[in-house]
Amino acid sequence: MAARGRCVLQRVFTVLRAPTVCSQGSAVTSSGGRLLWKPHVRLLSCSNTLYRSDPPTTGPSSLSFRSHTCGELTAHHVGERVSLCGWVQYLRQDMFVILRDFSGLIQVLIPQEESASHLKSVLFDLTVESVIKVTGTVRQRPAGQENKRMPTGEVEILAESVEVFNVCRTLPFEIKDFVKKSESLRMQYRYLDLRSSQMQKNLRLRSQLVMKMREYLCNVHGFVDVETPTLFKRTPGGAKEFVVPSREPGRFYSLPQSPQQFKQLLMVAGIDRYFQMARCYRDEGSRPDRQPEFTQVDIEMSFVDQAGIMSLVEGLLQYSWPAEKGPIKVPFQTMTYEEAMRDYGVDKPDTRFSMKLMDLSEVFLSTEINFLRSALSQPEGSVQAIRVPSGAKLFSGKDLENVKQTAKTQFGQELSVVLVNEDGTLKSVLKKLLSVSVTDELLQRTGAEPGDLLLIAAGSLHTVRPLLGNVRLLCAELLESRGVSVRDPSAFRFLWVVDFPLFLSKEEEPEQLESAHHPFTAALPEDTQLLYTEPHKVRGQHYDLVLNGCEIGGGSIRIHNASEQLYVLKNILKEDPSLLSHLLEALDSGAPPHGGIALGFDRLVSIIVGAPSIRDVIAFPKSFRGQDLMSCAPDFVSEEELKSYHISVKWPTERGGEEEK
Amino acid sequence: MAARGRCVLQRVFTVLRAPTVCSQGSAVTSSGGRLLWKPHVRLLSCSNTLYRSDPPTTGPSSLSFRSHTCGELTAHHVGERVSLCGWVQYLRQDMFVILRDFSGLIQVLIPQEESASHLKSVLFDLTVESVIKVTGTVRQRPAGQENKRMPTGEVEILAESVEVFNVCRTLPFEIKDFVKKSESLRMQYRYLDLRSSQMQKNLRLRSQLVMKMREYLCNVHGFVDVETPTLFKRTPGGAKEFVVPSREPGRFYSLPQSPQQFKQLLMVAGIDRYFQMARCYRDEGSRPDRQPEFTQVDIEMSFVDQAGIMSLVEGLLQYSWPAEKGPIKVPFQTMTYEEAMRDYGVDKPDTRFSMKLMDLSEVFLSTEINFLRSALSQPEGSVQAIRVPSGAKLFSGKDLENVKQTAKTQFGQELSVVLVNEDGTLKSVLKKLLSVSVTDELLQRTGAEPGDLLLIAAGSLHTVRPLLGNVRLLCAELLESRGVSVRDPSAFRFLWVVDFPLFLSKEEEPEQLESAHHPFTAALPEDTQLLYTEPHKVRGQHYDLVLNGCEIGGGSIRIHNASEQLYVLKNILKEDPSLLSHLLEALDSGAPPHGGIALGFDRLVSIIVGAPSIRDVIAFPKSFRGQDLMSCAPDFVSEEELKSYHISVKWPTERGGEEEK
Repeated sequence: MAARGRCVLQRVFTVLRAPTVCSQGSAVTSSGGRLLWKPHVRLLSCSNTLYRSDPPTTGPSSLSFRSHTCGELTAHHVGERVSLCGWVQYLRQDMFVILRDFSGLIQVLIPQEESASHLKSVLFDLTVESVIKVTGTVRQRPAGQENKRMPTGEVEILAESVEVFNVCRTLPFEIKDFVKKSESLRMQYRYLDLRSSQMQKNLRLRSQLVMKMREYLCNVHGFVDVETPTLFKRTPGGAKEFVVPSREPGRFYSLPQSPQQFKQLLMVAGIDRYFQMARCYRDEGSRPDRQPEFTQVDIEMSFVDQAGIMSLVEGLLQYSWPAEKGPIKVPFQTMTYEEAMRDYGVDKPDTRFSMKLMDLSEVFLSTEINFLRSALSQPEGSVQAIRVPSGAKLFSGKDLENVKQTAKTQFGQELSVVLVNEDGTLKSVLKKLLSVSVTDELLQRTGAEPGDLLLIAAGSLHTVRPLLGNVRLLCAELLESRGVSVRDPSAFRFLWVVDFPLFLSKEEEPEQLESAHHPFTAALPEDTQLLYTEPHKVRGQHYDLVLNGCEIGGGSIRIHNASEQLYVLKNILKEDPSLLSHLLEALDSGAPPHGGIALGFDRLVSIIVGAPSIRDVIAFPKSFRGQDLMSCAPDFVSEEELKSYHISVKWPTERGGEEEK
Repeated sequence: MAARGRCVLQRVFTVLRAPTVCSQGSAVTSSGGRLLWKPHVRLLSCSNTLYRSDPPTTGPSSLSFRSHTCGELTAHHVGERVSLCGWVQYLRQDMFVILRDFSGLIQVLIPQEESASHLKSVLFDLTVESVIKVTGTVRQRPAGQENKRMPTGEVEILAESVEVFNVCRTLPFEIKDFVKKSESLRMQYRYLDLRSSQMQKNLRLRSQLVMKMREYLCNVHGFVDVETPTLFKRTPGGAKEFVVPSREPGRFYSLPQSPQQFKQLLMVAGIDRYFQMARCYRDEGSRPDRQPEFTQVDIEMSFVDQAGIMSLVEGLLQYSWPAEKGPIKVPFQTMTYEEAMRDYGVDKPDTRFSMKLMDLSEVFLSTEINFLRSALSQPEGSVQAIRVPSGAKLFSGKDLENVKQTAKTQFGQELSVVLVNEDGTLKSVLKKLLSVSVTDELLQRTGAEPGDLLLIAAGSLHTVRPLLGNVRLLCAELLESRGVSVRDPSAFRFLWVVDFPLFLSKEEEPEQLESAHHPFTAALPEDTQLLYTEPHKVRGQHYDLVLNGCEIGGGSIRIHNASEQLYVLKNILKEDPSLLSHLLEALDSGAPPHGGIALGFDRLVSIIVGAPSIRDVIAFPKSFRGQDLMSCAPDFVSEEELKSYHISVKWPTERGGEEEK
């Protein structure tokens, strides 16, 4: 039997194995000898190896050709014989090879004696990024030659033998942190881009974060990790869902945007506590920093209320938070939707800085200024402002023009600019229209001081608040570009936003309501009766989690009563309930009260590591046009291959129409 | 601020919260009182609650309306005031409600006093599977009324208050273990089917297994969990890949059958150790017990050999193996492909029983029997047999006819039957053609005893072995159906099969070779030179993991040398290497030696729990025709919705052709 044979081999060859096993390369010892590959040798702890210490049975070097990783070696290892595997970072002074693996760099000293001439020539011939294994002894670097910027800078390896696994061609870019390369080059050669220390850190931190989250959910709180299908039925109105043709003519699966229906069905099924790192899909065409597939931490619980879910998520983040980023405090701050809109003009406020919106309507109650008067006379009319500290001092005329232009193009609104001069006088086109008392009140209410800038907008609250919310962020960026510290880049400010409206008016048809989030969100208990009388006033048991001004999660307590769900779908949203008949039937079959949340995992990781894009925390992302630049996906498929799916391509004609090929 | 307001509420209401919070239901106390829902109350540990013990902050009842799960209560809890949430299993003797949650059943005693009449009537009105919360006190059951078959059978809850969350309609089937229901009904009402104790156990064991696997890979061996894309480029010849139309005319993504290319690219990228619970897709149309999406434990390592990967997987299974299934021993047995085919006639032998194939060619070397002579004269001609202990005694004439029929229809082969009578004489059409010496040798070589059955096949080894391998399993089933214990149903026999041929002749074109597994598998080092001379003789560094006769995993050491990979693709497999140019370029960019494995996770779990189908370990499986019977996916999509994907449906015409709608 091979099994028995292998056991025998184990005993015979283990001694030789560690420094000599290779698959394709050739092993060279410092005396030029050549050793052969031994098949079927199992790596087991064995007392008579060539190592001083036993080969590791756990940790990053277990079961491997190496005994240690490059980055872990310190003065503590001096005198140990080690085997290292890695990439040639560079050669230095005809004496050193700098070897790299995921853990860091180590200096390898090439022996200079005549007897090692063969080893020397093999090492000298190595191209950058070639893959080798080096065996040698760790020694202290000679006094004065330590490199304090290098974690392994106190030591070096005196090479005894080397094995070349692969020789590297000339690469399109070097694997050095300081080498800048274009986004498209990075994507085309992603397997090289991922060798950078930053990308290695990002992917490893991501993996550790998800591991801790699982420990918290499964081991601490008894959650069940359930996989739900990604080949599903198209959701009513699911315009952003990819379709997948089946072998039945005309029938398509759909790649769901989230496991929403399944997570609720699992509660009806008595799973009690569900979570999943769920792959989700969204076809949004070209949108910056969105990905057609992304990952969410998907959670659902039975017999829980809003406060319970919020506590769970706070505990989850606290437990899994990377130690090197400092602790986070719980509970997080909570703010109502109304408060967020009032103070920050947005439902995902960046609370790392103030510059809040101020209501100046009272100041201008009896104003003669036309545009302010007309704004205040309209329904929900208001005059609002933000104060930009030192804005008058630091912003150029062009800066102010850009801000005003943004207001005009993105919100169709005029923005009034008031600069407070160093002597306390104002500079503004409004200046001569303001009485002394109004000027005083304006300065007092806003707390404006010499050098500050006031930005004033007037109109309906529904436009003025978002406008100033946007301008607030723009001004923060401008101030930072002038060297002012506005937002602490190492701060993580979590915020819950609650009490959202359950329904919003449709833009194109304001009489008609649509769900602010999704049709399964339950009303606040105290608002439930309003469903049947004034649905537009109902607040939902919905909660958004915001981090540094980015929405990183959202969830709700769901409707668990079939008749209430039917009423919302049919009478309020005017949707065809038959498309969700399986869900309605499930709610009628003994559904427990339940709720949950989904956290956008890619975004969360990107904020933690400070990456400019979620592409920097995804191993193989698509370009903003949805392409994989490495493999050229999506790609053409022959008509023949499409036949079994009963579809054909409609090619666009030159006139803009489409025709079949 | 809402945050501050909530903190105040916490202090005020925590005392009331636990027994009273509900979302939709109404709370009824044993004196008929009604308590209202309190919003924004955070569940925190608090010393002055109504509980004797603090509400749990960890475990399955943390952050929940309940204090305990139904199934955890024992005599140890007697005297404690508890809150339980669950489903009404049934009402008994007008006195008891049997309440169920995922953890088990508990008996609730309905108070019979007049003062509790309202509570009593609420409980009596409950339909089966309605969802309630019960608060009450745990008490010992009166002597003689214990139920020893019920884990909680020593105790019961004296109800004090109840809250009805949802009333259940009449269901299509009862949630009782003894209720048989059809597969299609189970699938249509999957959310009810999952309430069964078996399905709850299956999904929870699956979740725990994957959690332990992650701990082993991440925490013990330093693996990095990396998510790879599922929207990818079509693989050359990927006939079983679903296509996903993109918004670019004629261009399609493909849902990959495995992350094979990505896992290798991650090694080139220096990730060193990758794993993923990878969702994979395979469009095979209608095949029994296959799913269009399934999950594999996907693993890849750098600087490792075959023995290293095998040790890793053995450790992985040993570490994660459910305690209740008993320990498993490592290392697993190893067998070469040649040994497996020789002894078991199949490359995934069920080693729980013997009944091995025996070569009788020598016995019949000088036979006069025509069909044996002609079989032995052909290339690789052979006479092979299996001995079925007690087969002559236990099998009916019809059984034997069925076995012979299988041989004929599935393998186009005749099977010769030899029965050994109780007196040692033979019963067979061959009997009179066999000389005394041949008969003696036959009995001696096969070890056949009175009552045994010999099944003999003659022909090329390539047909005879698979035939007898199949017949061997058939006979085991037959023996078991007659009450003979052949395979221990509680045994788990793992087996590695190694040294597979790297290439096989194509069936339709025997001169042309194709990969036995995939084109990235490296040759055995000692066979590498044969690649360039006699490729059909090359064995690969491939290993299959077999459990109880099912292949549950396969992997290999990969080719890490670009020129070798190019040679295999171009010169041996005659494939267009440009389709894999990104992989070839990657191998040329400093690829480390690497290898990996993929375990079929659904199949593994189904064998562990003893489920007849992988559908029993998947929350929402598709039917064998690829349909979701609950939501009716796949479903029709309007031509309008397909427009943005530049495709149209080709409807089959009555004559069998296709036309556009």
